[in-house]
Amino acid sequence: MSKQENTLSIFALGGLNEIGKNMYAIQYEDDIIIIDCGNKFPDESLLGIDLIIPDMSYLQENKEKVRALIVTHGHEDHIGGIPFFLKKLNVPVFATRFTLGLIELKLREHKILRESELKEITSASELTFGKVSVDFFKVTHSIPDCLGMVFRTPEGNVVHTGDFKFDYTPAKNEHADIHKLAEIGKEGVLLLLSESTNAERPGATPSEQMVGEHVDEAFMKAQQKVILSTFASNVSRVQQVVDAARKTNRKLALLGRSMVNVVEVAMERGYLQVPEGMIIDQNQINDLPPERVAILCTGSQGEPMAALSRLSTGNFRGVEVLPGDTVILAAGPIPGNERNVTRIVDNLFTIGANVIYGSGSSSGMHVSGHGYQEDLKLMLTLMKPKYFIPIHGEMRMLQKHRLLAESIGVEEGNTFIINNGDVVDIKSGIARHTRKVTAGNTYVDGVGVGDVGDIVLRDRKQLSEDGMLIVVLTMSKSEKKLVTSPDTISRGFVYMRESEELLKDVNKLIEKTVNEVPESNKNEWGVIKQHVKKSIGQYLFSHTRKKPMILPIIIEI
Amino acid sequence: MSKQENTLSIFALGGLNEIGKNMYAIQYEDDIIIIDCGNKFPDESLLGIDLIIPDMSYLQENKEKVRALIVTHGHEDHIGGIPFFLKKLNVPVFATRFTLGLIELKLREHKILRESELKEITSASELTFGKVSVDFFKVTHSIPDCLGMVFRTPEGNVVHTGDFKFDYTPAKNEHADIHKLAEIGKEGVLLLLSESTNAERPGATPSEQMVGEHVDEAFMKAQQKVILSTFASNVSRVQQVVDAARKTNRKLALLGRSMVNVVEVAMERGYLQVPEGMIIDQNQINDLPPERVAILCTGSQGEPMAALSRLSTGNFRGVEVLPGDTVILAAGPIPGNERNVTRIVDNLFTIGANVIYGSGSSSGMHVSGHGYQEDLKLMLTLMKPKYFIPIHGEMRMLQKHRLLAESIGVEEGNTFIINNGDVVDIKSGIARHTRKVTAGNTYVDGVGVGDVGDIVLRDRKQLSEDGMLIVVLTMSKSEKKLVTSPDTISRGFVYMRESEELLKDVNKLIEKTVNEVPESNKNEWGVIKQHVKKSIGQYLFSHTRKKPMILPIIIEI
Repeated sequence: MSKQENTLSIFALGGLNEIGKNMYAIQYEDDIIIIDCGNKFPDESLLGIDLIIPDMSYLQENKEKVRALIVTHGHEDHIGGIPFFLKKLNVPVFATRFTLGLIELKLREHKILRESELKEITSASELTFGKVSVDFFKVTHSIPDCLGMVFRTPEGNVVHTGDFKFDYTPAKNEHADIHKLAEIGKEGVLLLLSESTNAERPGATPSEQMVGEHVDEAFMKAQQKVILSTFASNVSRVQQVVDAARKTNRKLALLGRSMVNVVEVAMERGYLQVPEGMIIDQNQINDLPPERVAILCTGSQGEPMAALSRLSTGNFRGVEVLPGDTVILAAGPIPGNERNVTRIVDNLFTIGANVIYGSGSSSGMHVSGHGYQEDLKLMLTLMKPKYFIPIHGEMRMLQKHRLLAESIGVEEGNTFIINNGDVVDIKSGIARHTRKVTAGNTYVDGVGVGDVGDIVLRDRKQLSEDGMLIVVLTMSKSEKKLVTSPDTISRGFVYMRESEELLKDVNKLIEKTVNEVPESNKNEWGVIKQHVKKSIGQYLFSHTRKKPMILPIIIEI
Repeated sequence: MSKQENTLSIFALGGLNEIGKNMYAIQYEDDIIIIDCGNKFPDESLLGIDLIIPDMSYLQENKEKVRALIVTHGHEDHIGGIPFFLKKLNVPVFATRFTLGLIELKLREHKILRESELKEITSASELTFGKVSVDFFKVTHSIPDCLGMVFRTPEGNVVHTGDFKFDYTPAKNEHADIHKLAEIGKEGVLLLLSESTNAERPGATPSEQMVGEHVDEAFMKAQQKVILSTFASNVSRVQQVVDAARKTNRKLALLGRSMVNVVEVAMERGYLQVPEGMIIDQNQINDLPPERVAILCTGSQGEPMAALSRLSTGNFRGVEVLPGDTVILAAGPIPGNERNVTRIVDNLFTIGANVIYGSGSSSGMHVSGHGYQEDLKLMLTLMKPKYFIPIHGEMRMLQKHRLLAESIGVEEGNTFIINNGDVVDIKSGIARHTRKVTAGNTYVDGVGVGDVGDIVLRDRKQLSEDGMLIVVLTMSKSEKKLVTSPDTISRGFVYMRESEELLKDVNKLIEKTVNEVPESNKNEWGVIKQHVKKSIGQYLFSHTRKKPMILPIIIEI
């Protein structure tokens, strides 16, 4: 993208038409400011992929213009891509104290903490990059220390909300700065970027206070151990668990690496108050009477290797869920995780535990961190933007958010429903969506970043559904014919034992096929391979309805 | 299982601790009666599996005792296993007229219709098998002609509810026979088997009448084409669509094989009334003005190959969704299908369609066919059983259903939460769960039934996540050493192009490994293979964090 004089440009490298890998950018002439750099977890169709991060090639090509990465809050879908970003771009990272704590954990893991330039900000900070200055406002979400921000540009003010809800009685002092929001709105907002996660949900988000009351009640009723699973980063909920444990005179054990790490960061940095001596090691659990024990663990999304899942199947060394124990799932399943979560609930019921669970807020043990329609309308009302880009959501959420904006008075045609990579340019007060920059998914598989692409995935899909058949042909170089009978090896296809007949027939067919290749083509091993693939493929499909990958290998001797 | 004198035995071969593949059995001495024979669709972990049916080996071993298969209704999870059952056991199948229509479609597809013994029953039928007689009662569900049944045995009466809800204003004349239910309860029920699908949901199931009103409203508001997707077998909902089309003077096209087939069965057999000339061929859609067209299609579960999905991506030949068209999803997503459904909704929004959707009954376009807690309590209250076995549900549902039963007076300890294969024996009025018969999953993959097992699936999983690397070693028989450099072929692992260096190093390592195998072991190709697998496996894991399947192939020359 060449320099666009007097032009303010807004685009996303991730977060539009998806939930995850949020990464937004604001460019004014030669200064690019990045907001967030998240990851996304793959769905089942992306076989074997560990992580998805934004394609950052546009930023790499414009390295010298990228001034800063500003982070709204510490959730994975906002910080998970940072290590990969910093390996490619040497840019300072600005975030609040708690968010920085989580980023540091990540950078340490990737062994790039020392060389990274991390800068702590607060909601009172002011930054300037070229002709753009940035200031901040507090918002409430499901993790401490969240920011929204205002970019003051020569074209006008651009507001990015971050992830937010309004909660007038949050668990800790995490109120949104509603007065500052009102001021910003009064000053005038050219463009609002607001998150859309719950744009489909009518009403207002229930208060976190409700959760506290339900947690207290469950702890009081429990006769034995209480095990509660939630997101480690939801520190105010963790605080409520600590408080309930204190009130019922229980010690608290932490299970799961991220729970231990995040609680440590939160305590160190003053976001979590835990009475001296309350936290015990998991080895001490069995030394205490069950009614004196509470356990806080990871795995509320049903992740198969996390603590809760292992507890539910009796595979957590040294800690056991017993009949009569109380197990609380204090988190809503993220779409796609429902089955894994219900599997755990079923296992816990099988053990005989008293399981408190439920989708959404039906159990009273969870409220969403994202504003419902009334919250979104309050933000829109406070901001009264001229232009609106709904962000952080899938298409239907963006569309519903557009309708909400129009309902509070944003003019039809002034909302831009765009894709990752689409650029909205604003010049002389007029916004237009005309051009695109490169955007997309980069797959992280093992330690490889971007080394797995569509072909590899297509192969994996075929292998996963029908397996494969390797055909080894030992051919004489001089005589152009088979020296021995072909060898076949199958994996993931059918049981060898039960399919001996089938494979015998296949071997005969291979010999026949190879012998029938016209003499003139026998010089080309490629032609022989094609013939074998085709005839064996057809034969297997007609006999088994399966299409294994067929790999002919020719050995010349 | 040897003959159990004077003993009534109840067990399931499918349907307990799962949703799907329902198959229950009642045995009195030497007479076994089967209720339903369903299938289940695999989740993503069962790579490439098309279908799951109950393991029927117990029935095959006791062939001569199996008297009848009685079918409650025509949903896949109750009839989908019948073709496989009839290929193994020659047993008469009893079902109502509509259910038989759907079973016939299946048997025709499997080319075994002619030799099958199908017997039509009604809710007034009475059957006798040995010392057990069976009579029936109508229930309301989301498909026509559903039955529950009473088994009158020397030990007492056993009631099987089938799938049911109570709806006092159903769309067609599909009322439950509540008076007969009351009589049965008055006579005395020894054991109740009742379905548990919605045992977690408080309240009562809303009436199908509500859906009719919402469908009418949407049709009236629509300015262009209306496209509605629902389960083909939900004939009363189809009738509501037909009625709405009639009221708004629209012709109706049917898209999707199962929609066409089921509507045909329903019309032929008098379950669906369609005005003469209303149904048009899909080729005629574009000849009519859009406000004169309604389309009824399959794919409400987001199935990628079904009509709705293809419409949403512009891949349905000859039919196009245009901006301003109304698309209604009149079915709730079955757990696990949420993502596929929302993907379609997003695509339709992208096109610019007016999409009416929503989980559960939030859009007013869908009500469940399964009774909520109050419905289940009404059934329990009418039956007042001595013993209770909650069926048709996952563990948490069975447990919640147990609590409901206890709340209306079933004694604690008289509810049996059992697994597929667990047998409850009743003798002299006392029920005990003591023994097991064989039960489990049989996988159908392509045309193979049971030829894919855990090893094949494990291979597919490894292949799907990390791909594979084939190592071809050409070894001299006499000299026990490599004749040429090793050849490697990878699929689904990493891009060859980008990993040339890696694969070069691998080749070197293979040579080194083979050469270093101790002389004494070189006679055994197996040992060489083991060494190669191990050293290459370690090398690749440490360099890529991936564990591809490594397949060494030795060619002797």
